[in-house]
Amino acid sequence: MSSPPLEHRRTLKLTLAYDGTDFAGWQIQPQVRTVQGTIRDVLERITGEPVNLIGSGRTDVGVHAVGQVASFETRSPHGCELFQRALNAELPHDIAILQVEEAAPGFQARRFARRKRYRYVIHDAGARDVFARRYCWQLPYRLDDGAMARAAQVLVGTHDFSSFESSGSPRESTVRTIYALDIARPRVERPFELCLEVEADGFLYNMVRAIAGTLVQVGRGVQSESWVRDVLEAQHRPVAGPTAPPQGLFLLWVGYE
Amino acid sequence: MSSPPLEHRRTLKLTLAYDGTDFAGWQIQPQVRTVQGTIRDVLERITGEPVNLIGSGRTDVGVHAVGQVASFETRSPHGCELFQRALNAELPHDIAILQVEEAAPGFQARRFARRKRYRYVIHDAGARDVFARRYCWQLPYRLDDGAMARAAQVLVGTHDFSSFESSGSPRESTVRTIYALDIARPRVERPFELCLEVEADGFLYNMVRAIAGTLVQVGRGVQSESWVRDVLEAQHRPVAGPTAPPQGLFLLWVGYE
Repeated sequence: MSSPPLEHRRTLKLTLAYDGTDFAGWQIQPQVRTVQGTIRDVLERITGEPVNLIGSGRTDVGVHAVGQVASFETRSPHGCELFQRALNAELPHDIAILQVEEAAPGFQARRFARRKRYRYVIHDAGARDVFARRYCWQLPYRLDDGAMARAAQVLVGTHDFSSFESSGSPRESTVRTIYALDIARPRVERPFELCLEVEADGFLYNMVRAIAGTLVQVGRGVQSESWVRDVLEAQHRPVAGPTAPPQGLFLLWVGYE
Repeated sequence: MSSPPLEHRRTLKLTLAYDGTDFAGWQIQPQVRTVQGTIRDVLERITGEPVNLIGSGRTDVGVHAVGQVASFETRSPHGCELFQRALNAELPHDIAILQVEEAAPGFQARRFARRKRYRYVIHDAGARDVFARRYCWQLPYRLDDGAMARAAQVLVGTHDFSSFESSGSPRESTVRTIYALDIARPRVERPFELCLEVEADGFLYNMVRAIAGTLVQVGRGVQSESWVRDVLEAQHRPVAGPTAPPQGLFLLWVGYE
């Protein structure tokens, strides 16, 4: 058995989308269907090698991605387009490989990620939408998006976001920088669709969902706009609003240097 | 045991939407999850009576509805709004009751339906869309929508549509009147989304899907525009294109006198 020489190793970067509904999240776990495990298995069949597939970060059960990024090393000589075609042909229909690129040697999707952007989608129409239910948080009351947008601005910048971190994921630091936090109803023909978009240098565990759950308290009038500052300053998770459900969350984009 | 007197019977008309993906179609069948069976069971719990729920027509496995209509008789004194709230509270999230109305005595959703409108949705972008896959037919090639729209016009009017009827559903007549057949890309921001809308006085089994599958042959250049006339005149199903898959089909609207 002869392997190609070590110098033939290359690093490939995948950009991919998935419908998170029927996955137990990104990360490989025994006995359950995960995005990482599903793609890794197909890559191992295509390359005939063991593959260590590394994502830019985990997404939870039910969370979607429009632009997740992952990387792996391989000795396979296949071109990027052939990789993309072979992956899409073999993967189930709730994963789509959008791009395969040759990356610089040593590139790694998690370590080199510098920014991420998430969208959280809420429907605040009274009637439930059977076609959107997998892809948004449906609320039975109207939200004041202006109040939510104003209240959100206190979160932009560099802060300790302990109040917006779920337990179970100890990190060295709970300080992150939010570059933008926009709240809008982007589609004229769907006035009940409210999108929250957050871009930051990194996110604590469940941070976007805790921010969404907190701002909804303001949007429905249960809390005042200035309360969000109190929540941020408390640095204590129970002070904030509830964690919004996973199906409204989309990883949009991961930025590298 | 005393029942309310017979003169207290009323007829209610439901307008409803469903995501057909996880149903074995509209019609009640033993051992499987159907839309009719799911709603009927909830109605029997709410009213405490046996309920005969009649839809405007069946939809197949995987076919969706935005405006299906159904009717039933009941002795329940509950108001329409209370019926709607109770149904939506008890039904699974892939069915939504949009309206409950008092109907004229003797109204029946199937017998009195005079027109129906269906939409068939196709995506002809190269990349697959993981969020749309349950709600459209994804094709890996571009379609010439102008050619499809021109070719479709021969089907408008009163014709024998035998060429567009799947076997297995004998009917008295295979003549139907199509009032409109429109093909468009309705959303500027989604140029790969092609919608075919057909309104007729009734539809043969799989008729919209056979029309969609036939027009796609024209759109991809496999057949000429004038071929659709040959198909119509042949009155023979094998001459037409394949039956398009169910997940692109939506029952939009049912019209009554």
